[in-house]
Amino acid sequence: MSEFRNLLETFENKFPHRDYKIEIVAPEFTSVCPKTGQPDFGTVTLSYTPDAKCVELKSLKFYLQSYRNEGIFYENVTNVILEDLAAVLQPRWLKVEIHFNARGGITETVVAQYSAVA
Amino acid sequence: MSEFRNLLETFENKFPHRDYKIEIVAPEFTSVCPKTGQPDFGTVTLSYTPDAKCVELKSLKFYLQSYRNEGIFYENVTNVILEDLAAVLQPRWLKVEIHFNARGGITETVVAQYSAVA
Amino acid sequence: MSEFRNLLETFENKFPHRDYKIEIVAPEFTSVCPKTGQPDFGTVTLSYTPDAKCVELKSLKFYLQSYRNEGIFYENVTNVILEDLAAVLQPRWLKVEIHFNARGGITETVVAQYSAVA
Amino acid sequence: MSEFRNLLETFENKFPHRDYKIEIVAPEFTSVCPKTGQPDFGTVTLSYTPDAKCVELKSLKFYLQSYRNEGIFYENVTNVILEDLAAVLQPRWLKVEIHFNARGGITETVVAQYSAVA
Amino acid sequence: MSEFRNLLETFENKFPHRDYKIEIVAPEFTSVCPKTGQPDFGTVTLSYTPDAKCVELKSLKFYLQSYRNEGIFYENVTNVILEDLAAVLQPRWLKVEIHFNARGGITETVVAQYSAVA
Amino acid sequence: MSEFRNLLETFENKFPHRDYKIEIVAPEFTSVCPKTGQPDFGTVTLSYTPDAKCVELKSLKFYLQSYRNEGIFYENVTNVILEDLAAVLQPRWLKVEIHFNARGGITETVVAQYSAVA
Amino acid sequence: MSEFRNLLETFENKFPHRDYKIEIVAPEFTSVCPKTGQPDFGTVTLSYTPDAKCVELKSLKFYLQSYRNEGIFYENVTNVILEDLAAVLQPRWLKVEIHFNARGGITETVVAQYSAVA
Amino acid sequence: MSEFRNLLETFENKFPHRDYKIEIVAPEFTSVCPKTGQPDFGTVTLSYTPDAKCVELKSLKFYLQSYRNEGIFYENVTNVILEDLAAVLQPRWLKVEIHFNARGGITETVVAQYSAVA
Amino acid sequence: MSEFRNLLETFENKFPHRDYKIEIVAPEFTSVCPKTGQPDFGTVTLSYTPDAKCVELKSLKFYLQSYRNEGIFYENVTNVILEDLAAVLQPRWLKVEIHFNARGGITETVVAQYSAVA
Amino acid sequence: MSEFRNLLETFENKFPHRDYKIEIVAPEFTSVCPKTGQPDFGTVTLSYTPDAKCVELKSLKFYLQSYRNEGIFYENVTNVILEDLAAVLQPRWLKVEIHFNARGGITETVVAQYSAVA
Repeated sequence: MSEFRNLLETFENKFPHRDYKIEIVAPEFTSVCPKTGQPDFGTVTLSYTPDAKCVELKSLKFYLQSYRNEGIFYENVTNVILEDLAAVLQPRWLKVEIHFNARGGITETVVAQYSAVA
Repeated sequence: MSEFRNLLETFENKFPHRDYKIEIVAPEFTSVCPKTGQPDFGTVTLSYTPDAKCVELKSLKFYLQSYRNEGIFYENVTNVILEDLAAVLQPRWLKVEIHFNARGGITETVVAQYSAVA
Repeated sequence: MSEFRNLLETFENKFPHRDYKIEIVAPEFTSVCPKTGQPDFGTVTLSYTPDAKCVELKSLKFYLQSYRNEGIFYENVTNVILEDLAAVLQPRWLKVEIHFNARGGITETVVAQYSAVA
Repeated sequence: MSEFRNLLETFENKFPHRDYKIEIVAPEFTSVCPKTGQPDFGTVTLSYTPDAKCVELKSLKFYLQSYRNEGIFYENVTNVILEDLAAVLQPRWLKVEIHFNARGGITETVVAQYSAVA
Repeated sequence: MSEFRNLLETFENKFPHRDYKIEIVAPEFTSVCPKTGQPDFGTVTLSYTPDAKCVELKSLKFYLQSYRNEGIFYENVTNVILEDLAAVLQPRWLKVEIHFNARGGITETVVAQYSAVA
Repeated sequence: MSEFRNLLETFENKFPHRDYKIEIVAPEFTSVCPKTGQPDFGTVTLSYTPDAKCVELKSLKFYLQSYRNEGIFYENVTNVILEDLAAVLQPRWLKVEIHFNARGGITETVVAQYSAVA
Repeated sequence: MSEFRNLLETFENKFPHRDYKIEIVAPEFTSVCPKTGQPDFGTVTLSYTPDAKCVELKSLKFYLQSYRNEGIFYENVTNVILEDLAAVLQPRWLKVEIHFNARGGITETVVAQYSAVA
Repeated sequence: MSEFRNLLETFENKFPHRDYKIEIVAPEFTSVCPKTGQPDFGTVTLSYTPDAKCVELKSLKFYLQSYRNEGIFYENVTNVILEDLAAVLQPRWLKVEIHFNARGGITETVVAQYSAVA
Repeated sequence: MSEFRNLLETFENKFPHRDYKIEIVAPEFTSVCPKTGQPDFGTVTLSYTPDAKCVELKSLKFYLQSYRNEGIFYENVTNVILEDLAAVLQPRWLKVEIHFNARGGITETVVAQYSAVA
Repeated sequence: MSEFRNLLETFENKFPHRDYKIEIVAPEFTSVCPKTGQPDFGTVTLSYTPDAKCVELKSLKFYLQSYRNEGIFYENVTNVILEDLAAVLQPRWLKVEIHFNARGGITETVVAQYSAVA
């Protein structure tokens, strides 16, 4: 759980009788490498099937911006965002994928999923 | 059900003995954000397998244009278009996907499906 | 069945002991809208697994060109081409897909399939 | 001169001793065809060299949005936007280019320029 | 001069005190090869600076469609369209470019210009 | 079996305990149309899972070049290459796909597979 | 002068009172490396302003095909094609550009021009 | 002059007898909007002809990173970077271009130049 | 097992209770052809689901760089990297794909997988 | 002058009576950063107008490969290659451009020219 989780706001899903998918792409994600202090840049892609709640987009933007000056590793930030969103949205299904820009000529993408019926 | 549903016209499917797919892409969709009053822009993609009826394209264009000055959220407009088309066409299968342009650097796509045999 | 079916010529499949796929793309398809009299333009994609016969490409070109001044709807022309080719080739499997250029800002693609073992 | 000109706000150019270029691209422009009543869609590209004033981006967004339900021809809206911006900014140089989406399979782009030293 | 020239309609240029450019792209041009009788396909790009008159887009569409079943060579159709538009519009400057699709693996583009001050 | 089969050389697969895939793309394939005598051009894509042997790339290049002045139909050359490689490599699985450049505005792709366990 | 020059046929330019440009792209050019005997592949782009004569496209195709089994260097074939076309067409201006596919990871393009008024 | 100018380090140009161009693209630029406090993102492109000094790339990276939490307008940051680099490098010629990501559906690019011989 | 395996360093996977995927793309891989002594170039793509350990990116970079002057065949280097990473990471699942640049106009890609539950 | 200059071989230009351009693109250039010892990767583009001599491509490949394990800065290697080629070819005109891959998220391109008539 991150210290930023409470920034996430939700609104009521008005179509809970139907499984449908919401995909959100945020290409302006930036955090800081905890080892070198250098900024990292990436694209966050969230996909989920809402149950009772949907994430409010403006609050999601502020939540993602809160990592701007945080030192955190690629694998950790991906899994922490997954856990924050799963806890707040209680979705039927959720996937978080972050594609990080090249460092030293090497690119990394981390993909983690959550399922209510696991 | 939207107030615009009656704009949708149909014509007879002459090949009901065969399951086939029709995909329609309408990249000039625009509505209004009910919170900020600012216009939203997106691309609507409809796919369906007709049963007795096909949607008439000109009437579909007018139906989609009727959202031009409506205040409606992303998730709602996608599900409402699904329900209007499902009611009017009674298709064997139907998918509605709307990709909305970036706001605050964040893009959202909503995808909902209907199946006659659910 | 279209009046143009007899334009289609075939040659013997020399490898009937093997299921293999032939895909043909014809991006210069044009017909006429029966409602407005205006020309329509599209790309025809045919895929099939031959049984005893393959379609001769030059005769296919003439067959597709024969729609140039025909008034015919999107859904009809796709299904009629499927039926003509299925009758002439008697293939193991056949798919016809026509992607029509935008009209009124809206694009339509129709996809129909035939299977010998349906 | 359009009725919307007074929506445009400016701020002081702090670097008037230097000729530099500002290019603004607004891909979500929409107006209405005065003949058919149908919506038109396009991308507005503005380029200018400021003299004493720069255009404030949020006011420019509202200015461009004000054409949303206006019936106006391609050539006219391009020239009117040029004249409004030239009057309000008094720039050293200004170019307005609008690329309109295809109608009837045909695309049009209109480009007009203004120079303080003409 | 082509027999179709009288299909072209014009409207008054309301900004004759300014040199500005109009570019029109029509990617659905088709005519017939006078040698082989086979259809040709291409993209017509027109650019001009209007003097007193602008070309009306719908009439231009009908004018270009009138070549649909005409047998005419690449070089000729480009120059004839140039001459028709120059005669009807009396523009300050005009360029006609037609890019023809590949035949026998070879693509041809013809570009011709007219200037009022030649 | 083609007369060129003996040009293909192999080397020992050092990892036969593992199923892995090798994909080879040769975009400079050319042969001759047996009907018209005109050259055909295409891209050959080979994929296989080796058993005891892998194909040596230089010998494969010479093998493919040997079709340069051969008159052979699209469907035949694809199936013959499949049979030559299957015979020489005895692979666990093999796919041959040739995408031929457009002739008369029409493109054809032929795809054939072989499996050791069919 | 190449031995193939006499394959080039011409037709009368009907618009000699106007300077206009013809561009021809032939992406299926192939010849043979005189050193290694290996085939070379490239894209030939011809641009010219005709005077009294235009090149007939089918004869140009045969002319370019005649290099299929000729051993000739990149720089030579480009200059020889320039000289053959200049001699046969006597154009006002002519440019020949050949882009050769990579060999040893290195790509070469040769561009040569001819002008009647040099 | 920015407070970050002293972060820029240089090294000696060993080829001052020749005018040559260095272009540097830094696509991970981010600063903060002084009005809204929201982060801005952009791509910085620098081009210059060195005189006695070249900019050291690592120091340039740190210099650009120092804007990460600075509130500064598009036009100002572009001109300030130009002035800092011009002062430190004393180049023969210098151009700074920043392309900022869309906000409210609108993109802005600012381009400023410096010349030693102005 | 390669002589470079000990260059690979790992860090603890903090989310072992969840199956998630890490994909790493390294487009600057280069080794040497053991036959010709000529350098080969390729793009390495690694995907894995970590168990107890993740690979440290900087050590992976040094590991991949150690092949710079090694003579090794395409198939071998792909399988050896797979075995080194499988031994060091003991992952739940691992895939190594190397796409090698064209040699003699022919491109090869090798893909090998490892699964802990095979 | 580099120690590798003598690797460059030439052949006689058979068309010295004509100014023509040769462009060579070598996307597999690699050298070593003299500061960090890390490999650099880039694309070398050479353009020249030959006088009496042309560069032989295979020797150019070996010349460029000789930088593989050399520690040399971006600006230096670009200027040194220019000087080596100018000395060996004595061309009428020559341009060397090297685009280096991103390091620390920053890309650099260096462009230098030589002219016989400077």
